Amino acid sequence: MPDSVMEELQISPANPAGSHGTEQQAAGVGILLQIMMLVLSFVLGHVLRRHKFYYLPEASASLLIGLTVGGLANISNTETSIRAWFNFHEEFFFLFLLPPIIFQSGFSLSPKPFFSNFGAIVTFAILGTFIASIVTGVLVYLGGVMFLMYGLPFVECLMFGALISATDPVTVLSIFQELGTDMNLYALVFGESVLNDAMAISLYRTMSSVKSHVSSRQNFFLVILRFLETFVGSMSSGVGVGFTSALLFKYAGLDIDNLQNLECCLFVLFPYFSYMLAEGLGLSGIVSILFTGIVMKHYTFSNLSENSQQFVAAFFHLISSLAETFVFIYMGFDIAMEQHSWSHVGFIFFSILFIGVARAANVFSCAYLVNLFRPANRQIPLRHQKALWYSGLRGAMAFALALQSVHDLPEGHGQTIFTATTAIVVLTVLLIGGSTGTMLEALQVVGDCHDGHLSESFEGNNGYIAPSYEEGASSGNGLKMKLKEFHKSTASFTALDRNYLTPFFTTQNWDEEEDDDEPEDGRGEVSHRHR
Amino acid sequence: MPDSVMEELQISPANPAGSHGTEQQAAGVGILLQIMMLVLSFVLGHVLRRHKFYYLPEASASLLIGLTVGGLANISNTETSIRAWFNFHEEFFFLFLLPPIIFQSGFSLSPKPFFSNFGAIVTFAILGTFIASIVTGVLVYLGGVMFLMYGLPFVECLMFGALISATDPVTVLSIFQELGTDMNLYALVFGESVLNDAMAISLYRTMSSVKSHVSSRQNFFLVILRFLETFVGSMSSGVGVGFTSALLFKYAGLDIDNLQNLECCLFVLFPYFSYMLAEGLGLSGIVSILFTGIVMKHYTFSNLSENSQQFVAAFFHLISSLAETFVFIYMGFDIAMEQHSWSHVGFIFFSILFIGVARAANVFSCAYLVNLFRPANRQIPLRHQKALWYSGLRGAMAFALALQSVHDLPEGHGQTIFTATTAIVVLTVLLIGGSTGTMLEALQVVGDCHDGHLSESFEGNNGYIAPSYEEGASSGNGLKMKLKEFHKSTASFTALDRNYLTPFFTTQNWDEEEDDDEPEDGRGEVSHRHR
Repeated sequence: MPDSVMEELQISPANPAGSHGTEQQAAGVGILLQIMMLVLSFVLGHVLRRHKFYYLPEASASLLIGLTVGGLANISNTETSIRAWFNFHEEFFFLFLLPPIIFQSGFSLSPKPFFSNFGAIVTFAILGTFIASIVTGVLVYLGGVMFLMYGLPFVECLMFGALISATDPVTVLSIFQELGTDMNLYALVFGESVLNDAMAISLYRTMSSVKSHVSSRQNFFLVILRFLETFVGSMSSGVGVGFTSALLFKYAGLDIDNLQNLECCLFVLFPYFSYMLAEGLGLSGIVSILFTGIVMKHYTFSNLSENSQQFVAAFFHLISSLAETFVFIYMGFDIAMEQHSWSHVGFIFFSILFIGVARAANVFSCAYLVNLFRPANRQIPLRHQKALWYSGLRGAMAFALALQSVHDLPEGHGQTIFTATTAIVVLTVLLIGGSTGTMLEALQVVGDCHDGHLSESFEGNNGYIAPSYEEGASSGNGLKMKLKEFHKSTASFTALDRNYLTPFFTTQNWDEEEDDDEPEDGRGEVSHRHR
Repeated sequence: MPDSVMEELQISPANPAGSHGTEQQAAGVGILLQIMMLVLSFVLGHVLRRHKFYYLPEASASLLIGLTVGGLANISNTETSIRAWFNFHEEFFFLFLLPPIIFQSGFSLSPKPFFSNFGAIVTFAILGTFIASIVTGVLVYLGGVMFLMYGLPFVECLMFGALISATDPVTVLSIFQELGTDMNLYALVFGESVLNDAMAISLYRTMSSVKSHVSSRQNFFLVILRFLETFVGSMSSGVGVGFTSALLFKYAGLDIDNLQNLECCLFVLFPYFSYMLAEGLGLSGIVSILFTGIVMKHYTFSNLSENSQQFVAAFFHLISSLAETFVFIYMGFDIAMEQHSWSHVGFIFFSILFIGVARAANVFSCAYLVNLFRPANRQIPLRHQKALWYSGLRGAMAFALALQSVHDLPEGHGQTIFTATTAIVVLTVLLIGGSTGTMLEALQVVGDCHDGHLSESFEGNNGYIAPSYEEGASSGNGLKMKLKEFHKSTASFTALDRNYLTPFFTTQNWDEEEDDDEPEDGRGEVSHRHR
């Protein structure tokens, strides 16, 4: 039994007759090529950044390198056993490449702008992605009915809508960081793109299960309920793992010098533990590892010895850079190697139109809703909405889900969806990725902080206009109450953190930690008093 | 086409009917278990070390944890899709777990004792492993002919001899480091176990190809020639990659502060590049990455910025610790899960006897040979020979090759070899690993440096007796000439390094670098003058 399983599980069984030696040689060549492309991407990205050439961001460059080398390999009849190393495996992506990227997002996040925009982010990510998926699905279905494009069953249209609504954080955010932009806009774009990945996966899987059990038709509320359940469950498990790690490092006494390696080993294992725990429980690993990242940065990190702090920060940065760059190379190579059904150009063309419309429906309606509940001094301005609409480029998440749909759907359908997604990914990464800098400048949301450390510009004056209290009061009494409640809850969380969480989970007291972001808090205090 | 290949390449195809969601859930549970075992191993290892309990070293503890959890999983009818994550894949081992372990060996190596014992190490690793393989093979064959044990064809006996001659560096060396021992003995044990892995793989593969093309009988000299070719080729490619990296970091100007991440990314990719380059060329990745490690530490490392130096040292330490611990857990779990043919207990019993005899033939004959060519003050004393004989525990390399033999050999034969190897691995890791401390103390080769940094004890007085020049002279004129030549070559390499290599490949000059190991060199100077 184990033999047969193992034979099946061979990583490169494409050449079952060949000896293990030649298989390993093929693996060597394949991985060698990948490493060379990685090195090339890093060097090219560095050169482009140095010359402030923002039309080809690192992600686009990596994608192009992958496409080029893949194209060359396609022409030059490479051996199948080497090619096997370049096929994009969704499982590899979901289990090994995605976790470090998302963890680093949470770990490097400055929590204040994220949490002060939490309501808006959740609205965009949950309601907005839901709207976008439905709008895309319905439009694609109608397009099929009207013979404008290849016709798909309604459930499959919704699956396509779900997978294509997953926006990619990597490229846009790296440019945002490079150029420096308003912290609230950054938090919105970042938060939305991370959380909507989770929503898109969840929606996709729900649709997929609806498709396979057509009898048990679930209604939309059940879908939303299931998503919320997953979301809250994942968040709790992530936060729980984070707090556990904080307590472990507080009491284990590992922060002495010769135990640095042990300390780092354990620290490095926790995020992955959180991801796998959530996946094992059938929840969303992405959401879980994101919150673990936030909690570990806020509490566990300060329990480490100083050397280990430096090390783990650099470690996660390194690992996530490698994973990010590799994802785009891997995707580019796979796109060049796969066979596509280009017969449905109409499908691609209209899909691109429709996702633009769907994202507009998402962003502008959700922004309208959010602005209804926000005081006048915290309204999301139109140019931020436009920037948010424009930032919706599709990346590895959509690609991985589309690849899954090839297995999940009948022959021609999955292939069509996959080809369309591929085209959309390449176009949006190259075009939107390349023009984000120009767009940000045109919308005048480029900040003055060019050093990549955005945390200082939080509530800077380049984004929202900060009107006086009187203006805010004019928008009615009900809103004022809500605003007060909101501020109370924020304040009470801060108080909870200061008085209970930080002393309980860390060895430091709050005041020490405060030193880092004093300017922010200073301003926060002032505006508080002002109101 | 890609679909079919991809279907085959699914990481867990054991459950092809299940949806991707449940597969991913199974993967989550599997990986979660692995992470928990890793954490447990680290914590247990730490506790045992703290209490100076040397009878259960970390590797043995990891193996036991793997065995226990595997046994429990076996009893409790775990799902096949979860089990699939625990099967030991040789490719995964060779391509992802082994490289960091070997690189770290080279990277953390203090090159002087290694190179001053290079002749002896090569003799033990190449000639010695060859002798041990042949002796084991012949004895097993004779045992089969005399109906003492399960009979195998002669070539298969030689394959078994080759794979079982690969000794494992992990456990013994960690105890050596913990207890502190003579630097020359450490260099011998370390060098032999790393290089003999390469020899064993090479011999195994050669035998395997002899078996599959029985017509083209190669003689032993061709085998040796091919091995030497592989060895020299791998060494050159490793050294070449190392020097290339040194030049890159010298001239790229990456050692400024905000490029630390780029610098580290590139540095981290080079070792893996070296490994895959050698594998891709059909050479030995292990040998290549070992020499890349040595060269990168000596030249490239000093071209890094100070922060990056700290980071990469900690990074490789971390990665190799994780890989080492994981290998033993993985092996333990797989051993508990696999089906074994325990019907051939005689085979196991006599194999254990025979490998003891074979290792004695290896160590004592090679030591005799080495001592013939060494001056009296550098003879390998008998107690070092005994320690070397005792240190030959079998680990992951033998296990991985045995697992390969299950595919390479006919049904019952491969299974018998695999079971015997498994038993030998478990017994030697637990017994020899647990008793190494006692053995080292009994042989009185335990040093006085308990801090794990052995480099200081090089040519300390606890190992070789350092007789005066007169004693050395009594061993004849021929030897004296050879000794002089040897010293000239060592001296000329040092001069080459000081005058050409270091200035060419690094930004530092030699004198600065010297500071670290001045005591060593001081002593070296003295003994030089003394002679």
